[in-house]
Amino acid sequence: MQQALPPLPVPSGDDLPPALCILGLGLIGGSLARSVQGTVPTIGWSPTEATRSAAAADGYDVAETLQEALEAAAERDALVVLASPVTTFRTLLRSIDEIAPSVRLTDVASVKAVVQDEVAEVAPRTRFIGSHPMAGTAASGWAAGSAGLFRGAAWVTCLTDDSDLDDWAAVAALALAIGSRVVPADPTAHDAAVARISHLPHLMALALAQVGGHGGSLALSLAASSFADATRVAGTRPELIRAMCETNRDALIDAMDDALGIMGVARGSLASTGSLLKIAEAGHRARADFDARADLLTEVTLDGEDLIDQLLAVGAAGGHVSGITRGEAGLIVRAWYPAD
Amino acid sequence: MQQALPPLPVPSGDDLPPALCILGLGLIGGSLARSVQGTVPTIGWSPTEATRSAAAADGYDVAETLQEALEAAAERDALVVLASPVTTFRTLLRSIDEIAPSVRLTDVASVKAVVQDEVAEVAPRTRFIGSHPMAGTAASGWAAGSAGLFRGAAWVTCLTDDSDLDDWAAVAALALAIGSRVVPADPTAHDAAVARISHLPHLMALALAQVGGHGGSLALSLAASSFADATRVAGTRPELIRAMCETNRDALIDAMDDALGIMGVARGSLASTGSLLKIAEAGHRARADFDARADLLTEVTLDGEDLIDQLLAVGAAGGHVSGITRGEAGLIVRAWYPAD
Repeated sequence: MQQALPPLPVPSGDDLPPALCILGLGLIGGSLARSVQGTVPTIGWSPTEATRSAAAADGYDVAETLQEALEAAAERDALVVLASPVTTFRTLLRSIDEIAPSVRLTDVASVKAVVQDEVAEVAPRTRFIGSHPMAGTAASGWAAGSAGLFRGAAWVTCLTDDSDLDDWAAVAALALAIGSRVVPADPTAHDAAVARISHLPHLMALALAQVGGHGGSLALSLAASSFADATRVAGTRPELIRAMCETNRDALIDAMDDALGIMGVARGSLASTGSLLKIAEAGHRARADFDARADLLTEVTLDGEDLIDQLLAVGAAGGHVSGITRGEAGLIVRAWYPAD
Repeated sequence: MQQALPPLPVPSGDDLPPALCILGLGLIGGSLARSVQGTVPTIGWSPTEATRSAAAADGYDVAETLQEALEAAAERDALVVLASPVTTFRTLLRSIDEIAPSVRLTDVASVKAVVQDEVAEVAPRTRFIGSHPMAGTAASGWAAGSAGLFRGAAWVTCLTDDSDLDDWAAVAALALAIGSRVVPADPTAHDAAVARISHLPHLMALALAQVGGHGGSLALSLAASSFADATRVAGTRPELIRAMCETNRDALIDAMDDALGIMGVARGSLASTGSLLKIAEAGHRARADFDARADLLTEVTLDGEDLIDQLLAVGAAGGHVSGITRGEAGLIVRAWYPAD
């Protein structure tokens, strides 16, 4: 990266939400609670009694019931975070629409368009900004969480033409405060991207684990880092993989077809001519591009009437937000943007 | 692992080769030279002048010419190690057949049946035992080598019905002395296994890197550890990937068809029913089996007339050799073997 401008102050006061209410205390929700400790007052809730007890025993403020959590959120103008599996959102949104209908709201699901639609349908009065922190491990549950999980990771914040920038700023400020790179994105563009770099890798890991297993005990005993690394995410709980992949069906099918096409062409070439030239060179070049992706960013300042469009352009180009403050005419955003 | 027997002495004297001659000083050859330093006298050679100079500058004994290396090997009854790309073996074998025709010989290529055949054809008088240390990184070249590369890694040693066990013992003793797990295997069984757990993972990484790249800058900026880990080996030099994959064509096509079949069925299921149940559960189970693969090994002692068959049975079952010594009736081998 090049040409850092004088830093903007880390957002606080005006932009950080006055409180957080985290619904779901698994890996992501539990890590978020730990990450904001001392920065933003937080109340958590989980449908599982054992999880609530574990979080409370670790010194976190935990509501006994969803109703209690949402009443506290409404009272404190908290940002409510949906941090449970996406399949549970509809039920939670119904309670939100009943108990805290105009609350600030975000979620951490790995699909964004379907969540955007569901919120618009079930809890239309909430001040919703979808988000997706791109962090995780194969482990899950409260005990697996850690305060450093989001540091340096991308945190997608969704914007559409009618998003409220003040609502966006609250979510972005939170993500910045815990060390994430804030990436603005349109929900559909997000879904297409993660199908390729997260959901498809999970399916390929699941397939590869089986192909290795079909090779029997000798194959598994010979497996070294290339197999271990490539199948690591197959250790994720199957229901979590299904929840994220099945809800992103159309984009994932596109990504699968792309992969099947490349592999199929390579298979044909190997069988007919014995050559893997094309896949070897194109794949190596693609990995080199990935390694070089953040080499030429430059810092820019964004503001004005078309700020939503500017933010979306930053995300689409591979950049990210690095700071937020307020001027007389509204939000001022500092961002890293690919240099020409 | 369970029930360790009293340890056999680390092999030395009788079984370790009196000297090593390493032809090719890249990642594997260079790491081998560093690993045996102080244990076995070693002379190295590389066709590249810069590599010879770098190794000599680091204090290693380097021959100026292949002829000089092979004459020294013949004189000292050294174990010659083919540590250059498999495409160079034919030329090297011709020189060996001319200059050091009955020398001890091994190689470190990632395919074993074609090498076995090539040695039988070009240098049939050598005392050959194919081997394949299952260690590597995306880096290559002399500078990338390290003394610890083989520690804890599988080192395949090939056996067929007419193998000489004394020749095998020299290679196995060397691998044990540098901390590898020695896995006896039939060359064809080895090739089928590595197609599944090494060559296919490389092709899938190459395909996935391209699919991610097709998602553009947003996709790459969102990529987290699942994509980075799954595409890491796509950073390997394309000519090295091609050399190992293209020489293992038939076994690799079987593995590719297995993967394409699993992915294709999953694609069909996702498109028609929206479910990824089958791939999610079978893949997760396969990865769990992989994680548990060495949990139930027990130590056994092998000797007698059918030692080759016993050794191959150990490797096929996922076990490995842990020690070698000599009794009055010949070799005695200690091995870890899956418990009932």
